[in-house]
Amino acid sequence: MTRQELIHNIRTKRSFLCVGLDTDLKKVPAHLLGEEDPIFSFNKAIVDATAPYCVAYKPNLAFYEAFGVKGLAAFEKTVAYIRQNYPDQFIIADAKRGDIGNTSAMYARTFFEEYDLDAITVAPYMGEDSVTPFLGYDGKWVILLALTSNKGSHDFQLTEDTSGEKLFQKVLRKSQEWAGDDRMMYVVGATQGQAFEEIRKIVPDHFLLVPGVGAQGGSLAEVCRYGMTGECGLLVNSSRAIIYADTSENFAQAAAAAAMAVQQEMAAELDSRGI
Amino acid sequence: MTRQELIHNIRTKRSFLCVGLDTDLKKVPAHLLGEEDPIFSFNKAIVDATAPYCVAYKPNLAFYEAFGVKGLAAFEKTVAYIRQNYPDQFIIADAKRGDIGNTSAMYARTFFEEYDLDAITVAPYMGEDSVTPFLGYDGKWVILLALTSNKGSHDFQLTEDTSGEKLFQKVLRKSQEWAGDDRMMYVVGATQGQAFEEIRKIVPDHFLLVPGVGAQGGSLAEVCRYGMTGECGLLVNSSRAIIYADTSENFAQAAAAAAMAVQQEMAAELDSRGI
Repeated sequence: MTRQELIHNIRTKRSFLCVGLDTDLKKVPAHLLGEEDPIFSFNKAIVDATAPYCVAYKPNLAFYEAFGVKGLAAFEKTVAYIRQNYPDQFIIADAKRGDIGNTSAMYARTFFEEYDLDAITVAPYMGEDSVTPFLGYDGKWVILLALTSNKGSHDFQLTEDTSGEKLFQKVLRKSQEWAGDDRMMYVVGATQGQAFEEIRKIVPDHFLLVPGVGAQGGSLAEVCRYGMTGECGLLVNSSRAIIYADTSENFAQAAAAAAMAVQQEMAAELDSRGI
Repeated sequence: MTRQELIHNIRTKRSFLCVGLDTDLKKVPAHLLGEEDPIFSFNKAIVDATAPYCVAYKPNLAFYEAFGVKGLAAFEKTVAYIRQNYPDQFIIADAKRGDIGNTSAMYARTFFEEYDLDAITVAPYMGEDSVTPFLGYDGKWVILLALTSNKGSHDFQLTEDTSGEKLFQKVLRKSQEWAGDDRMMYVVGATQGQAFEEIRKIVPDHFLLVPGVGAQGGSLAEVCRYGMTGECGLLVNSSRAIIYADTSENFAQAAAAAAMAVQQEMAAELDSRGI
């Protein structure tokens, strides 16, 4: 999906919500456990319920790999289902990959050719040649970790170098030499508050993928205040607060209601900025 | 596997070779492609041929994920085959994972409980709570990326902070607060030469997993000179130079010969230090 198509979808649907499909068999409603593929059944119901209110889905590979071959099959079926039934959704593999060139090239082939995903999250530690193999696909995106939502983000990402530049700032600056805002986004945790101001000085136009609203405690209003651009420039992810809004047989309706509530808040944020 | 068991295996087998199972269908000998599971058939033959000369295997997940559900099945079968037939081998999932706590916990469950691997490679960018979920398993190891073998290692890993400490040095220092040398190893590329001296000042006793000998151009003699400890302290990986030593029907014998040549060089290094 191109940048213009994504912006068009956001304007039309009045939403920049990404629903995180962190599907855990331990949390799937009991009545689904008898089905042939409970993970896929759960995902299918969640997607059907939430698609009107979001513009993106983000399955986290860890949750699928945890169930081995069966889990990966559920992942493949989920991606194919979204592609076929909701072709305007942007699908992100939350994989946080990054390896030497020939290995990153294998991952790129898997996620972009085999599964036809729109984007993959990548860790920057190994530098340029671990990232560039993902950049050779038209309409496909790298979402590079910059400043993450967890406590451990303070351990290394905030380390200042001799010129006063923090590591996450260096990642933002340096990676712009590898691709522009039509191929690259950045992960910035919603819990980082005013750091969005600093970030927008370095990447004024790039889309940011923002996890950490909901279960992790970040505030949507604050993220918009400091991070939104004239073309939105945000994909805000919510996983647990939407997909596990209710664990009874009404889980899908509850997920729809939770997604709609976020979407309405997002519509107000877009409206107030004339987007 | 405990540290003492690993050291015992190295002393007994006169080898600290890790064979990297980066199995690519495009490079598997043609006569295997008709088999039901060519990736597993290839791995089985390589393992049977090289097991006398190595103490560890390192399948790189990227190569298996590239073939989707079938690739993952081949990975599972390969790990089970090594476990069953060569129980003294240390098996490393080269996965370079690292995510927020609940996601890293899912990965840990997959790699340590589901597959019973000995170790997993982890990327440090997200800090402590992305690594610690992997540290709660007896006899299981985290191998943290420190200074990698690729060109991009210069982009961020060498960045000096205001106290003159480089990022990879900070990773080595800080991560020792999370676990000792019985649970943690570090990835240091063979191409880094004298950096091993600096590294041994910070982690004098830890095992280092050293990729980059062979196809990537690192020198075994140099790695030993600057990196070896009184208990060896090294696992040196070779992938392509061993498993693709020959691509004819004689591939397994060629792999055995290539592994034996490295093992003999390693035996001489151990002998010369009285290990």
